[in-house]
Amino acid sequence: MTITDQPSTKGNDPETAIISAALTGALTTRDQCTAIPYTPEEIAEDAAAAREAGAAIAHIHARTENGSPTYDTDVYQEIHDEIRDRTDILINFSTGALHAPPEDRIEYVRAVQPDIAALNMGSMNYAKYSESREEFVFDMVFENSFGEIRQFVTAMEKAGVRPELECFDTGHVGNVRPLLQNGNLSHPLQFSLILGVLGGIPATIENLTHQVRQLPENANWQVIGISRDQWALAAGALAMGGNVRVGLEDNFYLPSGEMATNAELVEQAAQLTRNVGRKPATPEEAHEIMGLDR
Amino acid sequence: MTITDQPSTKGNDPETAIISAALTGALTTRDQCTAIPYTPEEIAEDAAAAREAGAAIAHIHARTENGSPTYDTDVYQEIHDEIRDRTDILINFSTGALHAPPEDRIEYVRAVQPDIAALNMGSMNYAKYSESREEFVFDMVFENSFGEIRQFVTAMEKAGVRPELECFDTGHVGNVRPLLQNGNLSHPLQFSLILGVLGGIPATIENLTHQVRQLPENANWQVIGISRDQWALAAGALAMGGNVRVGLEDNFYLPSGEMATNAELVEQAAQLTRNVGRKPATPEEAHEIMGLDR
Amino acid sequence: MTITDQPSTKGNDPETAIISAALTGALTTRDQCTAIPYTPEEIAEDAAAAREAGAAIAHIHARTENGSPTYDTDVYQEIHDEIRDRTDILINFSTGALHAPPEDRIEYVRAVQPDIAALNMGSMNYAKYSESREEFVFDMVFENSFGEIRQFVTAMEKAGVRPELECFDTGHVGNVRPLLQNGNLSHPLQFSLILGVLGGIPATIENLTHQVRQLPENANWQVIGISRDQWALAAGALAMGGNVRVGLEDNFYLPSGEMATNAELVEQAAQLTRNVGRKPATPEEAHEIMGLDR
Amino acid sequence: MTITDQPSTKGNDPETAIISAALTGALTTRDQCTAIPYTPEEIAEDAAAAREAGAAIAHIHARTENGSPTYDTDVYQEIHDEIRDRTDILINFSTGALHAPPEDRIEYVRAVQPDIAALNMGSMNYAKYSESREEFVFDMVFENSFGEIRQFVTAMEKAGVRPELECFDTGHVGNVRPLLQNGNLSHPLQFSLILGVLGGIPATIENLTHQVRQLPENANWQVIGISRDQWALAAGALAMGGNVRVGLEDNFYLPSGEMATNAELVEQAAQLTRNVGRKPATPEEAHEIMGLDR
Ligand SMILES: [Zn+2]
Ligand SMILES: [Zn+2]
Ligand SMILES: [Zn+2]
Ligand SMILES: [Zn+2]
Repeated sequence: MTITDQPSTKGNDPETAIISAALTGALTTRDQCTAIPYTPEEIAEDAAAAREAGAAIAHIHARTENGSPTYDTDVYQEIHDEIRDRTDILINFSTGALHAPPEDRIEYVRAVQPDIAALNMGSMNYAKYSESREEFVFDMVFENSFGEIRQFVTAMEKAGVRPELECFDTGHVGNVRPLLQNGNLSHPLQFSLILGVLGGIPATIENLTHQVRQLPENANWQVIGISRDQWALAAGALAMGGNVRVGLEDNFYLPSGEMATNAELVEQAAQLTRNVGRKPATPEEAHEIMGLDR
Repeated sequence: MTITDQPSTKGNDPETAIISAALTGALTTRDQCTAIPYTPEEIAEDAAAAREAGAAIAHIHARTENGSPTYDTDVYQEIHDEIRDRTDILINFSTGALHAPPEDRIEYVRAVQPDIAALNMGSMNYAKYSESREEFVFDMVFENSFGEIRQFVTAMEKAGVRPELECFDTGHVGNVRPLLQNGNLSHPLQFSLILGVLGGIPATIENLTHQVRQLPENANWQVIGISRDQWALAAGALAMGGNVRVGLEDNFYLPSGEMATNAELVEQAAQLTRNVGRKPATPEEAHEIMGLDR
Repeated sequence: MTITDQPSTKGNDPETAIISAALTGALTTRDQCTAIPYTPEEIAEDAAAAREAGAAIAHIHARTENGSPTYDTDVYQEIHDEIRDRTDILINFSTGALHAPPEDRIEYVRAVQPDIAALNMGSMNYAKYSESREEFVFDMVFENSFGEIRQFVTAMEKAGVRPELECFDTGHVGNVRPLLQNGNLSHPLQFSLILGVLGGIPATIENLTHQVRQLPENANWQVIGISRDQWALAAGALAMGGNVRVGLEDNFYLPSGEMATNAELVEQAAQLTRNVGRKPATPEEAHEIMGLDR
Repeated sequence: MTITDQPSTKGNDPETAIISAALTGALTTRDQCTAIPYTPEEIAEDAAAAREAGAAIAHIHARTENGSPTYDTDVYQEIHDEIRDRTDILINFSTGALHAPPEDRIEYVRAVQPDIAALNMGSMNYAKYSESREEFVFDMVFENSFGEIRQFVTAMEKAGVRPELECFDTGHVGNVRPLLQNGNLSHPLQFSLILGVLGGIPATIENLTHQVRQLPENANWQVIGISRDQWALAAGALAMGGNVRVGLEDNFYLPSGEMATNAELVEQAAQLTRNVGRKPATPEEAHEIMGLDR
């Protein structure tokens, strides 16, 4: 067995890694990092630059001009069109939010029909703790009942949008099982494994291998690491045959500690990909590997 | 290395296994199983019989005379006293509930001071799915924010009650970390690993070994399996050096499929314990192994 | 997911466990345990009693009348015929030896054509160490080159005998890969996972789950534990969906510490099987589960 | 928990990775790769260049002027002195050989007293298989009995040379246990985990995490990958907190497929180290991390 045909590769391509660029997010602002794109044009420019640097997918949260999150279908449509004017990168829309009802977050997916839309697969505490101050910075319960998950997945299915199953803990992967049995979900499945959120599974390579073992044989998967831990998780995932997500939503910094742009973060991920003997997938290759037509 | 000195034993005793009897629970009724004890006397009688059969700990939810859950301090006190009149079994009180505020569930722990009280270590979906009917039987979000966890653990600490850290997923074990760092929790720690609740970590021996790997070196741990799956999980846990919980709260049935009493379920667990070459701990031995005076 | 449909079950039957009885071995004598059968009649009587107690397979080393190992085809034939006169238990011949050349150990397999024959899948140190005396009791290199493995497997293939792939370490499971690729082996595969020999993989449930993960999806597997550790390994394996081997070759003692007969050891394994909610397979069921006609 | 304080780090430094350069090996020749150094001067020049590129340890096999292996103490002494004239890199001598008796391979360790010497920790098949030709390229039994291991380790202990425990399978790590118990070995321990030799543990990140779990808490460890698989194993190991070995003994090629020099291979490993947010250790830092004075 060579490292390129490990079981952990699952449905991914051992020779090629799909790089996603999470361009915006919803929580951070230009006060923290001036390179975060807000407007449809800015987002589309970053998408094109990320594509140039090696990304095959752009994961997007819409923002108003002053940077606050919006769930407006028109804005999402405009982002979609501006990107399509510039590049063939696959488009992935967030559906997460802290204070917007599910219906609002389904509507723009239904209307704009991106290639992919993210879907949170379970509930958990979502907190941050400061070791130096010995206190919790924030402390929330991130609620995603099966009822709500099914609302999203049914809408995506109807709209021909591939759900990206976001799993923050072991149980979240297990939650796929009843939804496969009752027909809400069908193969091929696409997973994002998020490690390192306090309340979910801790960020270790040991835990990443554990999460990957839980996945069905033919599933696609990528790792999402939060903060600068992202680079070690990305290296581990690439070595295991995984795909990776980087971008200003998840982390502002290069491994060196320098603050970066989306394109620079993607360029770093592409270098890491080549360093383990794989190469970044084009959008066309990613489309094929993920079976987006099925 | 012999099987009795495996790293998975952690702080447990390789030669001796602590059997907990979860006598009552809060959700099931005598319509489903006539052997469920309701009154303090009935609970105390079952505790004594469980002790005789090999249990060292009785885990208890109070009930009214018609079987509905109660958080009344007087009832908990009466259960405590009736048990103490009959046997030296260690007493463990539940603090969980679906519709009672935290304050109510802390009060009886503070007042009655059992040896141990259960503490849920995180949030998750808590659901049940019927494969035959292809539908969800129930679908809830089980919320336990860090704020609420800290309320409970602080009260237990003050009352000299050992918290039993109930972990339904990998992240729940990780949630211990900030609470150790800020001093809310201190060693030795006592964990319950619950597998098989839909929304939490699925019931496999692979996942049990994973959960045990997450625990600190000197921690005590037991497995809690829900439904008849319990017997395979118990066998796996006993083989790994773990402790086990059985009783009508978790499962009504012997491995043969016959419905049983609490004492019969404990007797079956004791037989399984001896079958792997270990022996059931007495309450005195359990007190020592768990370091309850520390 | 219930505990009965765990991935670790692989090609085994989750409801039914195949118990093998290793009746004789080659290294121990009646001075150590009076119940060890030597002659074909004694072996056949033990095989019948083991079948009665729940075993589906008898694993056999031939002995002379004074108990020393023999590779004489006539003796193996006589054992085979005496067993067949008494019971339908499946017959599995050892092919291992310390001082006999491979040809001698292939000949009786070729001639007598048992249902199954054991096959060591790799090399390793084979030693025993005394912690109390702080010295090695014995220290050998157990040599099984690929050349020798292929000699055996080719002969078995021709004789229509299913090879039982004996794996003492992780690499031994990996050694199956080239032999599948070049056609020396074909599916379905039957594995024995031996843990606890010094030089091979240590006896922990963690390591058992690791070994099982290495197996192909549709493989049958059983655990073989050496000495009294066997009972914990057997419990862990049964909980994971595995099959088990017991018998005087591996261990003389019940979990209680009492010395036992082959039938008593099998009876104990059958009880353990029922204690996890499974039942012992008959030879006919084992034949079907292992696909012995394929 | 951040990725830099994972349990898999064990005794390594999470911020700093020790890069070893295996400069020569014994099996390959300049016909295959012109950059392989033969003479003491050539080896010392490569050691200095490797040090410049980020290596802290040089692992060395002596060669005659025409490239064949030699166990001559004078040659090893000359290599040692030539390196010391040029650089402070730590010196690690091989003790392995196919056709030289143990005494010959101990003598130069005893006489020259390098900082570290390699020690094979068990036996296994050592083979190579060609999938395209469907045949074994070579097929050997690699024998290292406990008796021989103890001969080496005793000599190293007396000479004040740190043994580097080379483990090709799970059992090899377990073999450390009796040698610790009887005092042949003492903490801190230094492990090399070799994955991907046919006969030993296959090269997967899953198996690397498994091997690391077997190690004592305070152990140092590095990964050794054979052939171009090395780069993915190195990325996985660096992400887990491990150290790495590269160099012409293990692999001639950069991830891009270009043939390289020792210095170029080390430079690539150093880049990978920085890409996961760590930095290459100096020889002085490595000396401290490995506790070489203890
Ligand atoms: Zn997002
Ligand atoms: Zn309870
Ligand atoms: Zn045998
Ligand atoms: Zn070497």
